[in-house]
Amino acid sequence: MNILVVGCGRWGSFLAWYLCSIGHRVSLYGREASPHFAAFQKTGTNGLVTLQKEVVLTNELRWDKADCVVVSISAQSLRTFMSAVPQGALDGKPVVLCMKGLEIGTGRRLSTIVEEYAPRARVAVWVGPGHVQDFVAGIPNCMVIDSPDPDTKEFLVPAFSSSLIRFYYGSDMVGNEIGAAAKNVIGIAAGMLDGKNKTALKGALMSRGTREIARLIKVMGGNEITAYGLSHLGDYQATVFSMFSHNRRYGEAFVRGEAYDELAEGVPTTTALLSLGEKHGVELPICTAVDAVLHRGEEPEQALADLFLRSLKREF
Amino acid sequence: MNILVVGCGRWGSFLAWYLCSIGHRVSLYGREASPHFAAFQKTGTNGLVTLQKEVVLTNELRWDKADCVVVSISAQSLRTFMSAVPQGALDGKPVVLCMKGLEIGTGRRLSTIVEEYAPRARVAVWVGPGHVQDFVAGIPNCMVIDSPDPDTKEFLVPAFSSSLIRFYYGSDMVGNEIGAAAKNVIGIAAGMLDGKNKTALKGALMSRGTREIARLIKVMGGNEITAYGLSHLGDYQATVFSMFSHNRRYGEAFVRGEAYDELAEGVPTTTALLSLGEKHGVELPICTAVDAVLHRGEEPEQALADLFLRSLKREF
Repeated sequence: MNILVVGCGRWGSFLAWYLCSIGHRVSLYGREASPHFAAFQKTGTNGLVTLQKEVVLTNELRWDKADCVVVSISAQSLRTFMSAVPQGALDGKPVVLCMKGLEIGTGRRLSTIVEEYAPRARVAVWVGPGHVQDFVAGIPNCMVIDSPDPDTKEFLVPAFSSSLIRFYYGSDMVGNEIGAAAKNVIGIAAGMLDGKNKTALKGALMSRGTREIARLIKVMGGNEITAYGLSHLGDYQATVFSMFSHNRRYGEAFVRGEAYDELAEGVPTTTALLSLGEKHGVELPICTAVDAVLHRGEEPEQALADLFLRSLKREF
Repeated sequence: MNILVVGCGRWGSFLAWYLCSIGHRVSLYGREASPHFAAFQKTGTNGLVTLQKEVVLTNELRWDKADCVVVSISAQSLRTFMSAVPQGALDGKPVVLCMKGLEIGTGRRLSTIVEEYAPRARVAVWVGPGHVQDFVAGIPNCMVIDSPDPDTKEFLVPAFSSSLIRFYYGSDMVGNEIGAAAKNVIGIAAGMLDGKNKTALKGALMSRGTREIARLIKVMGGNEITAYGLSHLGDYQATVFSMFSHNRRYGEAFVRGEAYDELAEGVPTTTALLSLGEKHGVELPICTAVDAVLHRGEEPEQALADLFLRSLKREF
């Protein structure tokens, strides 16, 4: 089918490459001012992904030519992006969100922002583990596609599956969106532990992190078991342990006082999760600790290691 | 208090060192023929743990002098060991099991073997994450003590806690014993993925491994959430990712066809779990795959990677 991929950053450009490689006709949209876009136009590669000649680079959002729209832009710019989509342009089309985040300020799930501006679009999310570096090296993984609409899942999963990426059908939008976003916060916490030579506590972090997110998912009306699925726990290898994880590296650099240019998506997500926790009356001790270190100058060992080492109490 | 530590392997000798370091009077028992014991007698160290002078090395099991017995021998030799304990010798004494395994052939939990031979002993288990190498470097962790008897937990947790090891009170013997044993099987599976350059699938392994063990725990009368606690998921950092993990290294060496002298505890545990699965009518796909590779010559990629990459289906 004809797919418009919106966003030519690392993940968006990989998605264009991947979808082209399995036989779709792909246009990759980037803003004219985007340095990523300029690099692709000039060289066809960003050093990580080399696009096929068949991938059409474009600065124009030709909704009419797309059977399906795949979105990979910053979570915080989704609202601005959606507000500029002409009314009706996405009617009946699958809109697949591939970012992992929540709207800061409102704590809104990204799919609900699409629904707000394009209520007749067929919104879906594509989440779960996988790094571009692994995929382009031919290392397979399994991911999840979820949608409030069963037909949209049935349409997308077979169309997007290959021997490189096997998809599972998700069945909990709340759990998958919250879980996918929250794993980046756990990744930052993991990096902070690594940076303080407390890597051994990443076991406890996994156990308590999943628990905390499961509680939030449940109170928001999702299924708490989703926190233990591919979108959250299943993404911990890639997020909590991998050297490719931006969020982990961000946390590590932060506590070491080293510069780290790229903002980690987990930073605004931490703020968004805390507002959700407050709204729904759920304590989120790990998110609170990460926030205290990032935004309130607290000592990471005080804030984070103490979380696990503090008290003698029942585990559950 | 006076503590008799039984077993002077890597973990037993660390336990002796640790319990002495927090102020207990410790005797460390080893068989006369044990090379570990000979090394400690001669040099006071095994290269990893250097025992304090106060630790008494002994070949005699002086039950009468011990207020508490801490056991760290091979899981498969527990029955032989217990059958030689004089009747009544352990009456009223805490007996703390520090091994992670199940009896092959019967699938029995280790605490039930102690109860069979010493029904008036106060049996407990000490499980959760932590490597000797990290602890002797001063890196703290949190672990779990569980017992069917609340008083025994109340007695042990404050007596054994320190800034190096913080204990949580467990409340599910079935879940904690099954979970602690089973994490070694997941560790072997993780090593097999590493050995086949499929590290990226360790995310899916974590998500599906915990699920599989949770199901088994539930059908055995435990609480399925325990699989997501410190004894199982909380031990994955140490087991699934650490370079110190025997079971992970065993699985990696196995699929690479490299020699690996020390038997991994997860090997008999795999067999024991499969018999439990059969007995209770629970499918254990990951345990089955590990068994197929270890014992039936199946190709690891066929058996294991395919488990995650095979089918398009609902996640839960």
